[in-house]
Amino acid sequence: MGRVVIGVDLGGTNLRTGLLSFEGDILDKRKEATYASDGWKKVVQRLTQNIERQLEIAAQRGFSVVAVGVGAPGVIQADRGVVVKSPNFPDWNNLPLKDELEKALKLPVTIENDANAAALGEQWRGAGSGIGSMILLTLGTGVGGGIILNKQIWHGADGMAGEIGHMTILPDGRLCGCGNTGCLEMYASARGIVQSYQEAGGAPINGAAEITSVQVYQAAREGNELAIRVMQDMGRMLGVGIANLINIFNPELVVIGGGVKDGWPLFIGATKAEIRKRAFEVPAERTEIVPSRLGDDAGMIGAAAVALQKIGNKD
Amino acid sequence: MGRVVIGVDLGGTNLRTGLLSFEGDILDKRKEATYASDGWKKVVQRLTQNIERQLEIAAQRGFSVVAVGVGAPGVIQADRGVVVKSPNFPDWNNLPLKDELEKALKLPVTIENDANAAALGEQWRGAGSGIGSMILLTLGTGVGGGIILNKQIWHGADGMAGEIGHMTILPDGRLCGCGNTGCLEMYASARGIVQSYQEAGGAPINGAAEITSVQVYQAAREGNELAIRVMQDMGRMLGVGIANLINIFNPELVVIGGGVKDGWPLFIGATKAEIRKRAFEVPAERTEIVPSRLGDDAGMIGAAAVALQKIGNKD
Repeated sequence: MGRVVIGVDLGGTNLRTGLLSFEGDILDKRKEATYASDGWKKVVQRLTQNIERQLEIAAQRGFSVVAVGVGAPGVIQADRGVVVKSPNFPDWNNLPLKDELEKALKLPVTIENDANAAALGEQWRGAGSGIGSMILLTLGTGVGGGIILNKQIWHGADGMAGEIGHMTILPDGRLCGCGNTGCLEMYASARGIVQSYQEAGGAPINGAAEITSVQVYQAAREGNELAIRVMQDMGRMLGVGIANLINIFNPELVVIGGGVKDGWPLFIGATKAEIRKRAFEVPAERTEIVPSRLGDDAGMIGAAAVALQKIGNKD
Repeated sequence: MGRVVIGVDLGGTNLRTGLLSFEGDILDKRKEATYASDGWKKVVQRLTQNIERQLEIAAQRGFSVVAVGVGAPGVIQADRGVVVKSPNFPDWNNLPLKDELEKALKLPVTIENDANAAALGEQWRGAGSGIGSMILLTLGTGVGGGIILNKQIWHGADGMAGEIGHMTILPDGRLCGCGNTGCLEMYASARGIVQSYQEAGGAPINGAAEITSVQVYQAAREGNELAIRVMQDMGRMLGVGIANLINIFNPELVVIGGGVKDGWPLFIGATKAEIRKRAFEVPAERTEIVPSRLGDDAGMIGAAAVALQKIGNKD
């Protein structure tokens, strides 16, 4: 009977559950709405039901599930399996998610920060397949990060490492939600792109009431000079951040995911030029900068990888 | 017969050699001038002679030397034991220092970057004794760095990790020798302090022809308002850099060494205030910021630690 693992990506919007082989092949996956506002009890119940559903499917197909890995947003104490707090789940305070799930499922459960899980997912089966050291930057509404060193997630002393979006790259820059000024997130995120476009006096695009980052990419592709400049400026700021990571880590690879990746050709040239200008030559030439490959599955696949590492079935 | 290890700190100015126990106690140490301008052959010869001297002392005292560790400045390929290039030794190009020394000494030799060695030295027997993750910042003429994760030096893919002095903290800031603008090194080093004092129109201090960082500390201690402000500005810039390291690594400890450490009370308050302002609260409160403890012995002790790790006698 084949042994398999369950990976879960618990997002503020969607709950994704997958059944994976020890090699990371997806045998089954499903997605449903999280309904985070229902409160922690109902969300944990829904989570349990979805995992049980995968257990049934595994049983029907003759597979034995050995562990469950869950990626969740927010501050996670991975060693204890506790969600300390999570902006997406306002009523989750020091929730012992690992214990709750293990009680219900009678299986070993690991909990991991979602950005860290996505980074390990990309290292396992995505853009960083087989790579020892890489950094994932997720350019979405904000900027998330995950650091992989020696094929392992670097958690730091409190499980809070990898807050790359909150690296200061302009000390007197824009005020960030975290209280700091000039965070990378304020420039290299979807929100940052919209803010840059608005601050430069950009007009509403095609008569839309609200400007979105997707509209800015589209306008840039259609030759709108302001939109082109905004995307290049964004690329330069991203380049400052990545150059810092290269000089600090000398990693093999930097992977860029998140919605802003859709604007790739509009910013990546400026990003690479900035890296060449700022980082040391040898590590800058070594470090490949590539788009993520797993898309929405990265967190689920990575959560499964975390679970396998925990039980000693992945290096 | 007790087993011991030799640690060497090969600097551009001084060559320090020490005989150490497996616990890192210094049993003997000596120092002489390096005379880097004599060229690589003579320097390697001098290095060999100094190590042989320690071997004799060990033999006389009944110790058996099991390995030699050397810390050297510049770009080092630690795995191959090659000095790729070194600003202090202009004629060293891809010098196979490990092979040269092993041939002469008939002992296992490890080569390590000097800043990395100093970081491991502080982790072993200095300010970070027993600590798993720490970052050493050496504030000297420039700013050097060494990163310790899981009690090991983080080398990166090409052995070039830890170039923390070349983190951009002000994108349009001062031009650095590395070609980048706004490197931490241009503000938080002795040279940066002198430049800040001069740019602010500071007058020569006590009639000296040339302004030095030591004079600036002294003037600040004596109440010179400009010098006080320069040191606080320097502290703030250092704080931007350390806040970034905290958000990225969530380390247990940051250790500050180098000559600028002598101005500690003049900058550390501003540094800590900046960290509180910029870094996440939990990791910022966790990370202690402390002065280095080993002084000029850090590199030698750390080089011995590297050698012991290599032969499996240190975790």
